[in-house]
Amino acid sequence: MIEAIIIGGSGFSGAELIKLLAGHPFARVSAATSTTYEGQAVSDLYPNLHGLTDLAFTKLDIEAAAGANVVFLALPHGQAHKLVPELREAGAAKIIDLSGDFRLPAETYEKWYGQPHAAPGLLDEAVYGLTELNREAVAGTSLIANPGCFPTAVVLAAAPLFCAELVEEDITANCLTGVSGAGRMPTDATHFCRIDENTAAYKLAGVHQHTPEMEQALGPNAQVSFTPVLSPVNRGIYSIVTAKPKTAVVVSELQDLFVDFYRDDHFVRVLEPGKVPQMKATAGSNYCHIGLAVDERLGRITVITALDNLVKGAAGQAVQNMNIMFECEETAGLMAAGLYP
Amino acid sequence: MIEAIIIGGSGFSGAELIKLLAGHPFARVSAATSTTYEGQAVSDLYPNLHGLTDLAFTKLDIEAAAGANVVFLALPHGQAHKLVPELREAGAAKIIDLSGDFRLPAETYEKWYGQPHAAPGLLDEAVYGLTELNREAVAGTSLIANPGCFPTAVVLAAAPLFCAELVEEDITANCLTGVSGAGRMPTDATHFCRIDENTAAYKLAGVHQHTPEMEQALGPNAQVSFTPVLSPVNRGIYSIVTAKPKTAVVVSELQDLFVDFYRDDHFVRVLEPGKVPQMKATAGSNYCHIGLAVDERLGRITVITALDNLVKGAAGQAVQNMNIMFECEETAGLMAAGLYP
Amino acid sequence: MIEAIIIGGSGFSGAELIKLLAGHPFARVSAATSTTYEGQAVSDLYPNLHGLTDLAFTKLDIEAAAGANVVFLALPHGQAHKLVPELREAGAAKIIDLSGDFRLPAETYEKWYGQPHAAPGLLDEAVYGLTELNREAVAGTSLIANPGCFPTAVVLAAAPLFCAELVEEDITANCLTGVSGAGRMPTDATHFCRIDENTAAYKLAGVHQHTPEMEQALGPNAQVSFTPVLSPVNRGIYSIVTAKPKTAVVVSELQDLFVDFYRDDHFVRVLEPGKVPQMKATAGSNYCHIGLAVDERLGRITVITALDNLVKGAAGQAVQNMNIMFECEETAGLMAAGLYP
Amino acid sequence: MIEAIIIGGSGFSGAELIKLLAGHPFARVSAATSTTYEGQAVSDLYPNLHGLTDLAFTKLDIEAAAGANVVFLALPHGQAHKLVPELREAGAAKIIDLSGDFRLPAETYEKWYGQPHAAPGLLDEAVYGLTELNREAVAGTSLIANPGCFPTAVVLAAAPLFCAELVEEDITANCLTGVSGAGRMPTDATHFCRIDENTAAYKLAGVHQHTPEMEQALGPNAQVSFTPVLSPVNRGIYSIVTAKPKTAVVVSELQDLFVDFYRDDHFVRVLEPGKVPQMKATAGSNYCHIGLAVDERLGRITVITALDNLVKGAAGQAVQNMNIMFECEETAGLMAAGLYP
Repeated sequence: MIEAIIIGGSGFSGAELIKLLAGHPFARVSAATSTTYEGQAVSDLYPNLHGLTDLAFTKLDIEAAAGANVVFLALPHGQAHKLVPELREAGAAKIIDLSGDFRLPAETYEKWYGQPHAAPGLLDEAVYGLTELNREAVAGTSLIANPGCFPTAVVLAAAPLFCAELVEEDITANCLTGVSGAGRMPTDATHFCRIDENTAAYKLAGVHQHTPEMEQALGPNAQVSFTPVLSPVNRGIYSIVTAKPKTAVVVSELQDLFVDFYRDDHFVRVLEPGKVPQMKATAGSNYCHIGLAVDERLGRITVITALDNLVKGAAGQAVQNMNIMFECEETAGLMAAGLYP
Repeated sequence: MIEAIIIGGSGFSGAELIKLLAGHPFARVSAATSTTYEGQAVSDLYPNLHGLTDLAFTKLDIEAAAGANVVFLALPHGQAHKLVPELREAGAAKIIDLSGDFRLPAETYEKWYGQPHAAPGLLDEAVYGLTELNREAVAGTSLIANPGCFPTAVVLAAAPLFCAELVEEDITANCLTGVSGAGRMPTDATHFCRIDENTAAYKLAGVHQHTPEMEQALGPNAQVSFTPVLSPVNRGIYSIVTAKPKTAVVVSELQDLFVDFYRDDHFVRVLEPGKVPQMKATAGSNYCHIGLAVDERLGRITVITALDNLVKGAAGQAVQNMNIMFECEETAGLMAAGLYP
Repeated sequence: MIEAIIIGGSGFSGAELIKLLAGHPFARVSAATSTTYEGQAVSDLYPNLHGLTDLAFTKLDIEAAAGANVVFLALPHGQAHKLVPELREAGAAKIIDLSGDFRLPAETYEKWYGQPHAAPGLLDEAVYGLTELNREAVAGTSLIANPGCFPTAVVLAAAPLFCAELVEEDITANCLTGVSGAGRMPTDATHFCRIDENTAAYKLAGVHQHTPEMEQALGPNAQVSFTPVLSPVNRGIYSIVTAKPKTAVVVSELQDLFVDFYRDDHFVRVLEPGKVPQMKATAGSNYCHIGLAVDERLGRITVITALDNLVKGAAGQAVQNMNIMFECEETAGLMAAGLYP
Repeated sequence: MIEAIIIGGSGFSGAELIKLLAGHPFARVSAATSTTYEGQAVSDLYPNLHGLTDLAFTKLDIEAAAGANVVFLALPHGQAHKLVPELREAGAAKIIDLSGDFRLPAETYEKWYGQPHAAPGLLDEAVYGLTELNREAVAGTSLIANPGCFPTAVVLAAAPLFCAELVEEDITANCLTGVSGAGRMPTDATHFCRIDENTAAYKLAGVHQHTPEMEQALGPNAQVSFTPVLSPVNRGIYSIVTAKPKTAVVVSELQDLFVDFYRDDHFVRVLEPGKVPQMKATAGSNYCHIGLAVDERLGRITVITALDNLVKGAAGQAVQNMNIMFECEETAGLMAAGLYP
């Protein structure tokens, strides 16, 4: 049994980890920490877990955490880069960080996240855990930088195009996100009356901190014009990527390329030509659905990806990486279907 | 491995059965029938099942169905009472009917469902599969009348009160339901623009066909003043039952009564005093949450139950019954947590 | 032109007042105060008002406010009872308070709102502004206690029954409310991810502070077993009132009673027998829809009312009262239809 | 008083016309036709109109219709091009067609709408009623081709860019639409359980019939790579247009350009720099909100427009055009604010 500790267990990603690991055949959560909710039952905050866990949130104890087989950090950005060195020093064996803290070079991190990195020496060790692209490196590391939700969706959409050098380097990515992506903290921006029946873009014109993460994962020259849009749903990323092919391409070629690219990846489903992904089909699951189209009149490729921001975009991919690190079946604990309807 | 056949696999309850059994450790679906969608992949209609099932819908073949270990009927009301005799004649071993066809005496059925019953001789054999109340009878039968979604919620709320003879016989039950309860067929009443941002009661004044089912399950003198209300959510029953106690009662007595009544029932969770069930906490799960309150000033008990109409209110309870019929662990394949957020 | 001042203009009720008065033929808002948003444009917070108002929120100035023709107070409970004496002293001519501060006798107020009343001497002057019941008194007063949203819905449903002495004194009222009723302040309870796809009751067992207001408006012996339920919609109250008739009654008698009772009330629409109110049909409008049913088998009356909590349940009824106080047409500025779909 | 007839009154656009004209100071609807609902009260289908109209749907009578001052056609595509010649022959003075039938040259129409045009001779007379661009022509014509909802949003976003020759000819437009855009007819695609919590694109790769309408309105060389996306809201278009500027541009220049372009247009609101349109702010109103951004790193302009597909995208713009044709104030009957929250 893999003993896991979750630091930051009361946020949405942390709670999703608790839920996924409660159903995992080879892992169990021995502690979930929370500063705000210390002492409260997990099922008080997440009543869907009644009957599935008896855990209560505890205070962070670095020594105890370091003794677990794996430590998940599910904290807001800017905290993990300070904690990871402490955990390593205390002997932590394997660490999976769900924040943005170990995904970028130190100077890029400082520029986009607005603070200097506290552990630049660890950045080289950290493996970017977009499982389908880095499975081998994931297997061999002890520190995972688990990808962001938007980058997971955009990179899965665009990586085959860039690998095949099929497109110009400048792509657009308009991505809708469910509100859980904004976190559990109540704000004006997450009030039901603000979101319901509404739709609004934010961080226009390329200022979202996930932009450099996407570009880095897609290759040295990739440029992503990224617009995030907040949608009135709980969960989901729906990514619409458009790109200009260097030479004319038809949809069947694209289809062949993607099917081949993801042929060994259970959680990435390339839909048949003519099918369009639905966000909800992936809600609660670790799957990413991909749909492809070519506008031959204008010479433009459209790739659509749908996934659950809390699962494949966060906790699910973290468990997928854990499975690989511990040589479990990659799909262990992750075979839940989406909730549809 | 239990081989299961689903007759009427393309409706919401049928699809939920396919989904639940895809994750069941001891059962597999060998066929799912559909008149309308014969030949189409299940995952075309239910894209959440991509990667989880390769089934395509087939035409109903009574002989083949009768050869399975268990037959689930997930058809609209009025069809199963004609099919079950055929299936039995062809040798079907165990049958679980999710419709209202085997839940009531013949004359009551005719009155509330508007058609004579085609197999009145089988009604005595049929066991009403509200698992928590009839576990032993479920174990010993070959024909289950799986309860309706509203009756499951109302009976779980009121049975302890009636068993303890604590309340007057006349209770009110105002029950909210998600739209999936109205079925997959598109109608004016299920159009998004009709439902979204809306709430409306229907079948006012005790004319809903689930009324006699509730009263029968609660005992000879029970009277239920039942008002169903359509709510803008996909899944869920939220049942608000109010009753007049015969003598003054305080909430802690009520709490003790319910905890004791459901002490062996994993899927029924009696919340601590002061906690109120949330519909969404059960969405996608087989759990029923119960909350209790007493208005001492007016002398009135309120019991609230929340469950997922497609799971505990239909397919999940059917699998729970199947588990018991086949002497599996009662929770097998049913341990998914609700989707929250 | 009636010059109006709104104290507490940045909350949902205050903003609805600004919106309604922006379209009023005989009134204009000269100032809207806000402690938090002083200096900000109203249309920054409420972008639906771009092009309709150029107001910015200002600091409260009692002297200036008292100089207006009418002062609306749209503050949280517990503030108006301190401000109204100051406004009166400064010479305020007419005051309409949307909070609960002037609706109850001093001792009842203290019991349910948890604070002593600061101006008990004014309570006798205050007229309870449920327009349809108190039109004449509204016309003659200078201080209106504008009703709560739940009481408006429940009293409109039950007043004809009590006036005709048709029912036992003990009724139940299960009332769904849109989230705007919880106010603009972001909290755990109004986070989109908490509300969406969810339904949950709160303040069970008769502890909601609107209970005594309902009972007082319905008459000396009325008892209301009231359960509020939070629903995943922006706006609306959907009230399900059940009552036991003293002697058998059929729906046509009920229909006649209600049609007669509301024959002069433009904003109360008694639907034809068999029609059921829809919450959304009233969203954005000042109408209240009423539907009636009788369960003759069990001897129970059901009355359903639907209205918009921010309009007929707050700002709209306040404007309706203002119209009467100033001898305008009662419907002036209030003829907007609900948004449907 | 302008007497108006609505042909096709039972669809969402037709009902919105009835609602808007019920509140219009200078117009009244004398008849609304419906094949399906002939004889039924309008308020049966649209209960928001209780108390606001007593109309019942009638059968189409060409002679009677032609006698009105203005005829609105709110029919599905493919019917108006057959009816308009009949109406003209019968003497109809002014006609406003809300369908796609008079927006394109005959051969383009046939290609995108799949049927030959029955009245090609009238196409030259028809004025494309995007009011802000064609106000003068609207004033002088007797036949209006009222724009589609997507084209209204995209053309208002891109027209200033093309007029100023600021951008390359190839733009992308990802546009979210509320479900009311799919019409009142219940289908698999409009079932609540399909839409709720979901998001899905459709008609990928430039095959939507609104594409040529956009390109025609933007000028001879404009190319629009258009992807429509169905969103879980009742109303709204949220259009994200991206374009490459020919030479570097900063957002303040863009701002000046747009403010100047729309300086005389009450219903188009160019938001201040840094503000982003919200779809819901326009729901129920005739306003279009515009937000602007420039990604200087990548050299890409983003223009966002939000409007209500049934109002500015259909019935509201039709009334706006009617106002101009009859020399009323352009804003008459159209000053409703959006419903927010």
